[in-house]
Amino acid sequence: MEAAGEPQSNDIGSNAIDESISSSELATRLSMEAEAVTNGETDLESLNQPLLKRNRTLSASHLAMVGAKVSHIESLDYEINENDLFKQDWRSRSKVQVLQYVFLKWKLAFLVGLLTGLIATLINLAVENIAGYKLLLVSDYVQEERYMMGLIVLTGANFLLTLSATVLVVFFAPTAAGPGIPEIKAYLNGIDTPNMYGASTLFVKIIGSIGAVSAGLDLGKEGPLVHIGSCIASLLGQGGTDKHRVKWRWYRIMNNDRDRRDLITCGASSGVCAAFRSPVGGVLFALEEVATWWRSAILWRTFFSTAVVVVVLRAFIEFCSSGKCGLFGNGGLIMFDVSNVTVHYNMMDILGVALIGLIGGVLGSLYNYALHKVLRLYSLINERGKLAKILLSLTVSIFTSVCLYGLPFLVGCTKCDPSISKFECSTTGRTGNYKRFNCPKGYYNDLASLLFSTNDDAVRNIFSTNTPGEFHSVSLVIYFVLYCILGLFTFGIAVPSGLFLPIILIGSAYGRLLGIAMGSYTKIDRGLYAVLGAASLMAGSMRMTVSLCVIFLELTNNLLLLPVTMLVLLIAKSVGDCFNPSIYEIILELKGLPFLDANPEPWMRNISVAELADVKPPLISLRGLEKVSRIVDILRNTTHNGFPVIDDDVTVPSSEGTKARELHGLILRAHLVAVLKKKWFLNQPRKTEEWEVRQRFSWVELAERDLDFEQVAISKNEMEMYVDLHPFTNKTPYTVVEDMSVAKAMVLFRQVALRHLLIVPKYQGAGIYPVIGILTRQDLRAHNIQTVFPHIAKTKGREKQK
Amino acid sequence: MEAAGEPQSNDIGSNAIDESISSSELATRLSMEAEAVTNGETDLESLNQPLLKRNRTLSASHLAMVGAKVSHIESLDYEINENDLFKQDWRSRSKVQVLQYVFLKWKLAFLVGLLTGLIATLINLAVENIAGYKLLLVSDYVQEERYMMGLIVLTGANFLLTLSATVLVVFFAPTAAGPGIPEIKAYLNGIDTPNMYGASTLFVKIIGSIGAVSAGLDLGKEGPLVHIGSCIASLLGQGGTDKHRVKWRWYRIMNNDRDRRDLITCGASSGVCAAFRSPVGGVLFALEEVATWWRSAILWRTFFSTAVVVVVLRAFIEFCSSGKCGLFGNGGLIMFDVSNVTVHYNMMDILGVALIGLIGGVLGSLYNYALHKVLRLYSLINERGKLAKILLSLTVSIFTSVCLYGLPFLVGCTKCDPSISKFECSTTGRTGNYKRFNCPKGYYNDLASLLFSTNDDAVRNIFSTNTPGEFHSVSLVIYFVLYCILGLFTFGIAVPSGLFLPIILIGSAYGRLLGIAMGSYTKIDRGLYAVLGAASLMAGSMRMTVSLCVIFLELTNNLLLLPVTMLVLLIAKSVGDCFNPSIYEIILELKGLPFLDANPEPWMRNISVAELADVKPPLISLRGLEKVSRIVDILRNTTHNGFPVIDDDVTVPSSEGTKARELHGLILRAHLVAVLKKKWFLNQPRKTEEWEVRQRFSWVELAERDLDFEQVAISKNEMEMYVDLHPFTNKTPYTVVEDMSVAKAMVLFRQVALRHLLIVPKYQGAGIYPVIGILTRQDLRAHNIQTVFPHIAKTKGREKQK
Repeated sequence: MEAAGEPQSNDIGSNAIDESISSSELATRLSMEAEAVTNGETDLESLNQPLLKRNRTLSASHLAMVGAKVSHIESLDYEINENDLFKQDWRSRSKVQVLQYVFLKWKLAFLVGLLTGLIATLINLAVENIAGYKLLLVSDYVQEERYMMGLIVLTGANFLLTLSATVLVVFFAPTAAGPGIPEIKAYLNGIDTPNMYGASTLFVKIIGSIGAVSAGLDLGKEGPLVHIGSCIASLLGQGGTDKHRVKWRWYRIMNNDRDRRDLITCGASSGVCAAFRSPVGGVLFALEEVATWWRSAILWRTFFSTAVVVVVLRAFIEFCSSGKCGLFGNGGLIMFDVSNVTVHYNMMDILGVALIGLIGGVLGSLYNYALHKVLRLYSLINERGKLAKILLSLTVSIFTSVCLYGLPFLVGCTKCDPSISKFECSTTGRTGNYKRFNCPKGYYNDLASLLFSTNDDAVRNIFSTNTPGEFHSVSLVIYFVLYCILGLFTFGIAVPSGLFLPIILIGSAYGRLLGIAMGSYTKIDRGLYAVLGAASLMAGSMRMTVSLCVIFLELTNNLLLLPVTMLVLLIAKSVGDCFNPSIYEIILELKGLPFLDANPEPWMRNISVAELADVKPPLISLRGLEKVSRIVDILRNTTHNGFPVIDDDVTVPSSEGTKARELHGLILRAHLVAVLKKKWFLNQPRKTEEWEVRQRFSWVELAERDLDFEQVAISKNEMEMYVDLHPFTNKTPYTVVEDMSVAKAMVLFRQVALRHLLIVPKYQGAGIYPVIGILTRQDLRAHNIQTVFPHIAKTKGREKQK
Repeated sequence: MEAAGEPQSNDIGSNAIDESISSSELATRLSMEAEAVTNGETDLESLNQPLLKRNRTLSASHLAMVGAKVSHIESLDYEINENDLFKQDWRSRSKVQVLQYVFLKWKLAFLVGLLTGLIATLINLAVENIAGYKLLLVSDYVQEERYMMGLIVLTGANFLLTLSATVLVVFFAPTAAGPGIPEIKAYLNGIDTPNMYGASTLFVKIIGSIGAVSAGLDLGKEGPLVHIGSCIASLLGQGGTDKHRVKWRWYRIMNNDRDRRDLITCGASSGVCAAFRSPVGGVLFALEEVATWWRSAILWRTFFSTAVVVVVLRAFIEFCSSGKCGLFGNGGLIMFDVSNVTVHYNMMDILGVALIGLIGGVLGSLYNYALHKVLRLYSLINERGKLAKILLSLTVSIFTSVCLYGLPFLVGCTKCDPSISKFECSTTGRTGNYKRFNCPKGYYNDLASLLFSTNDDAVRNIFSTNTPGEFHSVSLVIYFVLYCILGLFTFGIAVPSGLFLPIILIGSAYGRLLGIAMGSYTKIDRGLYAVLGAASLMAGSMRMTVSLCVIFLELTNNLLLLPVTMLVLLIAKSVGDCFNPSIYEIILELKGLPFLDANPEPWMRNISVAELADVKPPLISLRGLEKVSRIVDILRNTTHNGFPVIDDDVTVPSSEGTKARELHGLILRAHLVAVLKKKWFLNQPRKTEEWEVRQRFSWVELAERDLDFEQVAISKNEMEMYVDLHPFTNKTPYTVVEDMSVAKAMVLFRQVALRHLLIVPKYQGAGIYPVIGILTRQDLRAHNIQTVFPHIAKTKGREKQK
C-alpha cells in the first residue's frame, strides 16, 4: 500500500488526518476506514447508499473501488513542469535526441498496434477452438439423444473454464475483472487507478478473457481487448505506478505522464479496432468516449496504430482461411457482413426506424438503471471475500449453461424450407444458421441456432439477412428475456467481461422481433432490423454516436445503412439522455473515480474559487530555503501532493529597494521525497548554483514518481539542516484570480490538464499572502461542492447548458 | 471601414499610432498603408517578399488579405465574460429559457443541415443542366464535323459563364473568391475576417460557383460548399461583424461568439457532407482540419446536421431518379461507387501502394510549393484593379476551353472492344465512359472521355473499374500535364473555387498511369489505382488522414479498400510533412491571418512572458471610476480591445486597515463604446448600484460588438464627468505569472480560447503594479516573436515536438 496515497487534496487539519501520524499509521487507518465501508453495512438498505463514504469537506475523497477493493488513487501530472532541472534538459537536448524522441513515439505506436493485433488473434483462435470442440462434443451427445450427458458435459466444461478465469482474476489480478474501459477513461482524464496496467493484469486479462468467453458466459471480449491494448501501451510506455516495472534505459526519454497518456490512447483505439476490426471506429471511440484531451498529432498516431492492427488481423485471417487454425474458420473475428444486401427503404420505414431508436433509448436507460442496482448488490457479495466472488461466478456459469442448453428443448422443430439455398439447413456442427440440435433430419431448432453456439455465431445468425421466417417470435422472446437476465447478472462477476456483446445480443433480439411485428409494412430486411436494434441499445446505454455509427458501418460493411443507423443512434441517445447518464459514467460514479466532466454545471458560475478556498483547510506552503525538519513534518502530516513555495522579503529587481513576497512556484511531493532520499542538505540556508544540483540530480530521476519516503532515516543533526527548494520548484504553476467562478476555473483545469491550480489574490499590497489556496480535481467536482454548499443543490435541477 | 480595426495589440506608443489622431484619420492612414502594400512593389523580386509588411514590434500586424484586399481583422471573444450584467442574466434565466436555448441550438443545427442540403442540391442541378446542354450542343457540332463552330460555341459559353461568376465576385463579394476554407479555419481559431459570412457573400458564392463549375474550369464545388454551409450557419446564428444583418429578437438569446463558433462548425461539416455525400467524413473533416476547439456536444450536434444533409440529398436523388430534373441523372453528386468491386491484393501489391503514397507526398508538397508561388504572382496581378482580375479569369477560361476541346484531337481513335459490355461504347451524349467525339462509329476517343465532360464525370470515368485497356498512356500523360497546369493557374482567379477536385484529377491521372505501369505485377484494378492516386495527392497536399480516409471510404463505398487507403494516406502525409506545411497553412500564412498553431515551438520554452511584455509598448489601464475624457482619449489613441481595470487604495476585506491595489478585471472596448453611446455618466466618482445599471443596459445590448464610436458627440461638460466601469468589467480574466514560459502560456491561450491574457507579477508587496502586461494572439505567434528576438531564430531549425 502506498504511503502517500491522497493525491489531490490539500486538507491538513481536516477531521481525520489532523494529528501527527506516520504515513504507515495513516495507511492502516485508511484501510480500516475501507474495511468499515466494506463490512459495516450489508443490509439491503445500503443498496441505496453510496459505496464509498465521503466526508463533508471538500477534497475529502481519495478512495475508489478498484477491482472490488477500496484503493487509493493518484492524480497524474499532465502539466509541463517548468523547474530548473527540466528546463536545463530541454535546452540541452540535441537535434538527434529530439528526432530519437519522435521516432520512439512512432515505434511505440507501431508496437502497440502489432502486439494488440497479435493478442487479439490469439484470443480469437483460443476461443473458437475451445468453444468449438466443446460444442461439437455436446452436439454429438444430443444427436445420440443422451441429453443428460450433454447437459453434464456442457455445464462441466463451462464450470471449469469459468473457474479458471475467476480464480486467476480473484487471486492474481482483481483489477482484471470487468471491461476496464471506465478506468481507462479515468486514466486519460488524469486519475491513476493502481494496478490497472501491470503485467499480471495483462496476463490474467488475456487468459481470463479466453476462459470466460469460451465458457459461453454472456460477455464479450471487446471491452477486455480495449483494456489489453491499454495495458500493452502502458507497459511499453512504462506508465502507471506499478512498482515492479522494467526500467529500460532507452525508455527513460519518454518519462512523463503526457506521453504515456498519448500512448494509452493509442492502446485503447487499437483494442477497439482489434475487437471490431474497425480501424476508423477505434480511433473515433477513443476520441468520443475514452479520451479527455485530444490533439491532431494523437489522431494521426492513433490512426497509425489501428492501421497496424488491421494489417495484422488481415494477415492472420488470410493465413487461417486455408484451414490451418483448427476450428477457426471464416468466423471468429466478429464481422456481421451484410454488404451483399441492397438496402431499400422509403419514407414509411422511417417510422419503424424511429420506433427502434425510441425503444433503444428507453431500454438502454432501463438497462443502465438495473445494472447499477445489480452492481451495488454484487459489490455487497464480492466484499464477503474471495470465496464469495468465486461462488458468484460459478453460480452464474451454471445458470447460463443450463439455460443455454435447456431452453431450446422448449420450442418445437421447424421444417427446413428448401427454397432457402443460402444456408445449409439442419446442421449438426459447430456453426450454421439452421441448427438441427434435437430435431429429426430436415428439421431445425431455431432457438438452438441462437443459444447453442458461441456468442459471435449467435450474433451472426440473428443478423443474417434474407431469412425472414427463420426465427419464430416465441423463440426470439425467450432469447430476449434470457439475455436481459444474463446481461444484468453476468457483467459484475469476477471475470474479464465486456459490455458490448451482451448489449448487442439484447438489442438484436428486440430489433428482429420488431421486424417481424412490422410484417409487410416495411421493406427493410429483418436481419437489418436486428442490426439496428443492436445499434439502438448501444446508443441508449453507452450514449455514443459517431463512433458507434462508424463501428457499425465497418462491421456491417454496408454504407447504404448509414442514414438509418444515424437516425436510430440520434434518437436512442436523445431519449436515453433524458433519464440517466451513460453506463460508463454510472460505473465511474459507482467506483468513486473523481472523473472531471467536460461541461461545468450552470450553478458553478455562481460560486467563486475564493469561496471554495474558504471552506478548505488552511494552506500549507514552504519557503524556498526550508528546514529539513519542517519538510519531513509536512510530508508526514499531510497527504498533499503539491506545495506552494513562497519567499519572504525578496528584493524586486524592477524597483530596487522594494521588498516583497515572491510566489516562487509549486513543488511536488515526489520531488521533496527525492531531495530527502538523496539527503541533499545544506548547513546554511543559501541559494545553490545550478551545477551543484545537476551534479546530484538528473531529470530522469525526478521524472520518476516515487512517493515512498518512510525508508529514509534522517538523523537529528540532519533535521536541523536546510534544503534549497528553488531548483526543484515548478516556477510556473497555472493561477486564477480569487474572483474566478468555479465554472471558468474548471474549464481551465480540464482543458489544460492540471493537477493543482493556485488561487491568487486580486489585491496587491504589503502583507497580502500571494496564494489564497490550491484547487485540485476533487474541489472542482460538482458532487463535492454540493456537499459543502448544500444551498446550491436547490438549483441542481437545471439543465446543463451544452 | 471599421474605425477601431486593430484587434489584438496593446501597442500605444508604437511607431505610427503615437499621436492623438481621430479614428477616421487612422482609417485613412491605414488604407494608405494598404495601398502602399498593393501598389508599391510590382516588380518580380517582390515575389519572395511577404505580401504584408510587418513592423519589427510585437503585435504589429492586424492586417490580412481578405478577398485579395488588405483588410483589418478582429479577434473573437470566446472567453466567458463574467461581468456583473452577464452574471445577473445567468442567474435570472428560468428553466424554460434554458430549455429554449438548448432547443434553439438544435433547431439551428437542423436548419443549417437542411439549407446546406437544399443549396447543394440546387448547385448540382444547375451545374449538371447548364454544363450538360452546353456539352450536348458542342457534341452535335463535332458530330457534324463543324469543329471550328464547336470550339467557338464551347469557348463562348465558358467565357460567358466565367464572366458572370467573376463579375459577381469582383464587384459584389470579393471574399467569395477561392474556397473559403482557410478563413473558416481562422474563424474557428478566433479570427474574424470581415465580410466573409454575409448574405451577399453567400449569394455570390452560390451563383458564382454554379457559373465557374459549369464553365468547365478546373475547380470544384466542394470548397465553396463548405463556405456556403458556414455562411448559412453564420447568418442563422448572426455571427461575424457584418453591419447589415437581420436582428431577429428570438435569436438574441444566442448572442455570443462561442455559440456562433459551434454553429459554424456545424455549417462546415454540413458543407463537406453535401460535397461528398459523406456524413461521417464531414464531421471528421471539421474535427481534423477546420475546428480548433472541440467538445463532445459539438460532435453530437455536427453529426445531426450532416445526417439532415444526407437525408435531404437522398430524397432529392430519389426524386430525380425518375428523370424530373432535366439532365441531372444518376451523376451529379460525386459518387465514385466502386462497391461492386471485390478487392484482391497480396503482400506484393503493398509495394505499388507504397509507391503511390511516396509519389503523392512528393507531388503534393511540390504542388503546395508551386501553388504558393503562383498565388504570389496572382496577387500582384489582382492588385492592379478589378479589370485585371476579370481579365485574368477570362484568360484562364479561354485557355481551359481551348485545351479541353483541342487536345482530344491529338490522340487517335480506339476501336470499341465488344467484350466490355458494362459501358455503352462510342456514346455521343453528355455522359458515358467511351466518348465517340470526332471518331467514326464503333470507335471512341479516350482523351475526350476525360476532357470533354464535366469534372465529376471525368473523375467517374477515370475511376471506373474493369476497364483496364480503356485509357492509353499517352492520353493519361496529356491529361496529367494539362491538369497540373490548370490546377496551378485556376485556383487563384477571382471565382469561387475548391481545391479538392483539381487535386483529385491530378492524383487520379498518375494513379492510373502507375496502374498501367505495374502491368501484370499487380492484382489491383487500375480504377482503384486512380482512386488511391487521388487520395495520395490529397494527403500529400492537404495533410489530412482520418477524415480523408473516411471521405474516400464513403465516396467509394467499399470498405475492403480501407487498409490500403490508410497506408497510402499515412505515407503521403509523412513524406509531405518533410517538405512543407499543408496547403491551408500556406494560404493562411499568405493571407496574413494570425492562426495560432496547436503545438508551441520548442524554443518557446526558453522565453518567459515577462520578456514579451518588456518589448511591448507600456500598458494602458483604466481606473474603476474613470473620467470620461480619459476614456475618450484612450479609445481615440489606441486600438486595443481590452483594458485592465485597476483600483488604487482599496481596503482589503480580509484584513481591515490594509490598503492595496486591486485588479478588478478587464474591460472590452465594445463595452466602453456602449457606455459612451448611452452617455451613462456620473457627476461624481461613486460606485453605482446594480439596479441603476440594469435599468439602462441589457446584456443583449452588451453582447453586440459595436466598435464605431465616432458618431458620439461628447460635450466639454460631459468630458469632465465620471463613469463607473465596475459593472462592465469582466472580473475574472485569465492570468499567468510573469515567469511562465511562452510555450505554456500559448497552450493556455489556445486551449481556453482567449483573446487577452493578463500577466501578473510573482511578487506581492506595496507599490507593485498588479498587471505587468497583456498578451494577445499576435504576441504568441512564433513568427512575431522571432522578429523581435532574432537570436531565437537560430534554434528555429529544430523539429517541433509533437
